[in-house]
Amino acid sequence: MKLPARVRIVDVSPRDGLQNERQPVPTDVKVELVHRLQAAGVQEIEVTSYVSPKWVPQMADNHAVMTGLQRRPGVRYAVLVPNLKGLEAALADRPDEIVVFGAASEAFSRKNINCSIAESIERFAPVVEQARAAGVAVRGAISCAVGCPYEGEVAPGRVGEVARRFKAIGVQRVDVADTIGVGTPLRVQRALEAVLAHYDLDHVSGHFHDTYGQALANTLAALQLGVWNFQSSVAGLGGCPYAKGATGNVATEDVVYLLHGLGLDTGIDLEALAETGAWISERLGRPTGSRAGRALLARRACVAEGG
Amino acid sequence: MKLPARVRIVDVSPRDGLQNERQPVPTDVKVELVHRLQAAGVQEIEVTSYVSPKWVPQMADNHAVMTGLQRRPGVRYAVLVPNLKGLEAALADRPDEIVVFGAASEAFSRKNINCSIAESIERFAPVVEQARAAGVAVRGAISCAVGCPYEGEVAPGRVGEVARRFKAIGVQRVDVADTIGVGTPLRVQRALEAVLAHYDLDHVSGHFHDTYGQALANTLAALQLGVWNFQSSVAGLGGCPYAKGATGNVATEDVVYLLHGLGLDTGIDLEALAETGAWISERLGRPTGSRAGRALLARRACVAEGG
Repeated sequence: MKLPARVRIVDVSPRDGLQNERQPVPTDVKVELVHRLQAAGVQEIEVTSYVSPKWVPQMADNHAVMTGLQRRPGVRYAVLVPNLKGLEAALADRPDEIVVFGAASEAFSRKNINCSIAESIERFAPVVEQARAAGVAVRGAISCAVGCPYEGEVAPGRVGEVARRFKAIGVQRVDVADTIGVGTPLRVQRALEAVLAHYDLDHVSGHFHDTYGQALANTLAALQLGVWNFQSSVAGLGGCPYAKGATGNVATEDVVYLLHGLGLDTGIDLEALAETGAWISERLGRPTGSRAGRALLARRACVAEGG
Repeated sequence: MKLPARVRIVDVSPRDGLQNERQPVPTDVKVELVHRLQAAGVQEIEVTSYVSPKWVPQMADNHAVMTGLQRRPGVRYAVLVPNLKGLEAALADRPDEIVVFGAASEAFSRKNINCSIAESIERFAPVVEQARAAGVAVRGAISCAVGCPYEGEVAPGRVGEVARRFKAIGVQRVDVADTIGVGTPLRVQRALEAVLAHYDLDHVSGHFHDTYGQALANTLAALQLGVWNFQSSVAGLGGCPYAKGATGNVATEDVVYLLHGLGLDTGIDLEALAETGAWISERLGRPTGSRAGRALLARRACVAEGG
């Protein structure tokens, strides 16, 4: 099995994981989450977003979170930015990278941000330009890269088109996000290949939701294409707010367990990561969404007879 | 990606799934579970076991379950058999196949059945002989084929050795079971390859537990070797009785979702299967262990912003 020589995890739990929490999460908990993640060895963290608090009240404390961090050398801190106003606020807090976004589904783009895909990306052009002028890296998240809740299957060509547009405005690397977790390995490979026509392997990451339990199979399929950057969320934080009980982001613990099992070093201490997942889950009053995290901490073996 | 041309699912929920239930499951529920599975299109079902009720009280109604079935043409019904006494009882109930078992871990074999691997398989020799003389097929389950709760990692050579012994006593096909769900794709492939030195692809099946969330990645890795038979349990029934909250068997719904997504027809109606998973989970008073089942029935899409 052909696999890349190295891998890198971006933990998105402080932003993508917590943004849909209904109850307010205290700022010090968010800061401690980032501290625990970096102490466990996570080298890239998506910390917060600068979306209007009218739309995402949970992220209203973005400035307090970013300025509350004790940053570690070698760790990259990313923030989501929706527009120039958000960028201005973000830049004051010195992120290493900003994240802009676009959907591969026209219907999703219309419903989510009320404009076409092309318009949404064009609007990011000055954001990207100013971020890069300020020496801040830019990543582009391509949502609905495999399926859309409104349109169903999304053609790989649509995904490639978003990548092309991101490239044209200066976005340096992109995430291929299966936002609703409907993807399976071959479809995910087709979406990644469409993006790899515009970005090289070092600048494409996989972001797979585990809604249908497929995220690790999709991760394996992506690895086999040479993709080596992956996004995930400790404890699987960030379940879909509209599907009760459904899981969202794949748990970082599960991804790290897979990668270590394949002999790929993530630099992450899986035990410390599992403890972080258990800690934040307890703070949020819910069971962890990570199977590996739960099993590691239970540390009890199943000895059922006959397989 | 190289994949087999066809696939086959054995649903083991009535036996492997229910055997560890603490509360007694009524016989009519077990029978209805089999009926629902076959109505959903499952073509092989592991129905019950003929282990002493002293050890597995939940399976004490094996005769009532087997004789209560309305069998469908084309569906195969398997039962677990631990010894000649069990075989005698089983044969009276006319299964299509019996399942014998052996561990690839010496420590597990000693603790589980109090004899060595070699002894345990040798004891099955007359069972296999008499079953085949009666025209009943024989399958061998190789447990702890990747890891053992007592010994840790299990060397592929040990797995191959169990396969060799099964072959020698006339076992016709074997399951490679990751009993404690610790396996990852490359280790699973090594275990399968060791078995494929003794059995051809048509006679090796994968039985992967999802304890660490790896089962579908392991399924994909097995498919890439050409393995096309898989065992799973609707709703993920059969969690490990010794690890609270830990998952055990991979959910059939999740495996079928993967296979259909890869364009491989299982003959199974996934909607009907998900409904079966929800039904039995409700009867057992627990949430389903299937992510695909839960998501399919929720039928609500996640439209979180920014991936």
